[in-house]
Amino acid sequence: MPIGTIEDLFIHELSDIYSAEKQLTKALPRLARAAEAPELKQAFETHLEETQGQVERIDQIVDALGIRLKRVKCAAMEGLVEESKEVIDGIEAGPLRDAALIGGAQKVEHYEIASYGTISAIAKKLGYKDAIPLLQATLEEEKATDEKLTLLAEQAGNQRAAEQSAA
Amino acid sequence: MPIGTIEDLFIHELSDIYSAEKQLTKALPRLARAAEAPELKQAFETHLEETQGQVERIDQIVDALGIRLKRVKCAAMEGLVEESKEVIDGIEAGPLRDAALIGGAQKVEHYEIASYGTISAIAKKLGYKDAIPLLQATLEEEKATDEKLTLLAEQAGNQRAAEQSAA
Repeated sequence: MPIGTIEDLFIHELSDIYSAEKQLTKALPRLARAAEAPELKQAFETHLEETQGQVERIDQIVDALGIRLKRVKCAAMEGLVEESKEVIDGIEAGPLRDAALIGGAQKVEHYEIASYGTISAIAKKLGYKDAIPLLQATLEEEKATDEKLTLLAEQAGNQRAAEQSAA
Repeated sequence: MPIGTIEDLFIHELSDIYSAEKQLTKALPRLARAAEAPELKQAFETHLEETQGQVERIDQIVDALGIRLKRVKCAAMEGLVEESKEVIDGIEAGPLRDAALIGGAQKVEHYEIASYGTISAIAKKLGYKDAIPLLQATLEEEKATDEKLTLLAEQAGNQRAAEQSAA
């Protein structure tokens, strides 16, 4: 991984998140199947479509800049996906597994928020005008998904509390 | 990893971040040595002290609740630390490596922000009154570190731009 210029660093970071997004498109259908609450299933399915769109945005950036991504495997996303598998294996389907899936998904979103934040900052320094709005659009989607997951976690908690006080 | 109750999930998540913090206390001295800018070196050294304090807070929570953490290795932090090693091996010391180190450190901070956010939410559901302020204090430190890193990245960019226009 020889990185000698800021352009190299841009390509390195973009290659890393491209790998992360690709891994996520494979993991999200499994997360949707593992979720019990219909709203959570739906959230994972919606985010799969968004993630596919985010991969396409990276393809657009690559085309616009005439660059070539490197074949790397994002080790952090590998770990995050591994953790979600442990959750599915270790917890029976139900509200508890849903809570753990939401927690894991928020770690994924935060990884992406940090990553697109860095890549956007580098794109601004380099004056990559075509790339900036595409990166910002994805960054906003990731933040919105994180907020939606926080709401789902709170709703699930409130619902359970209501069920318990009714019982 | 059998998780049957929300108390189990709390212990699982706390064990994961405990492993993450411990891995980070080992990685931060290496990051401080690898950084060139004195402010970045200082930021990593300060965060090492904070991280040691965060480990102590987890020990306090464990004592207060009379729980026992599980021996797990946080796979996501393993991936994040691995990525920082690649940065150090792949980029010579200087502003470019500093930029990459900042990006990697922000991924670490965001992992922790998501994790402490989830653990705080679970602690609130469980009414763990001793744990909540400790978790919140750490969460605020992680957010402040992330913001400091964003500032350092911007300052480094502005400084380089000023040097270039003066040259």
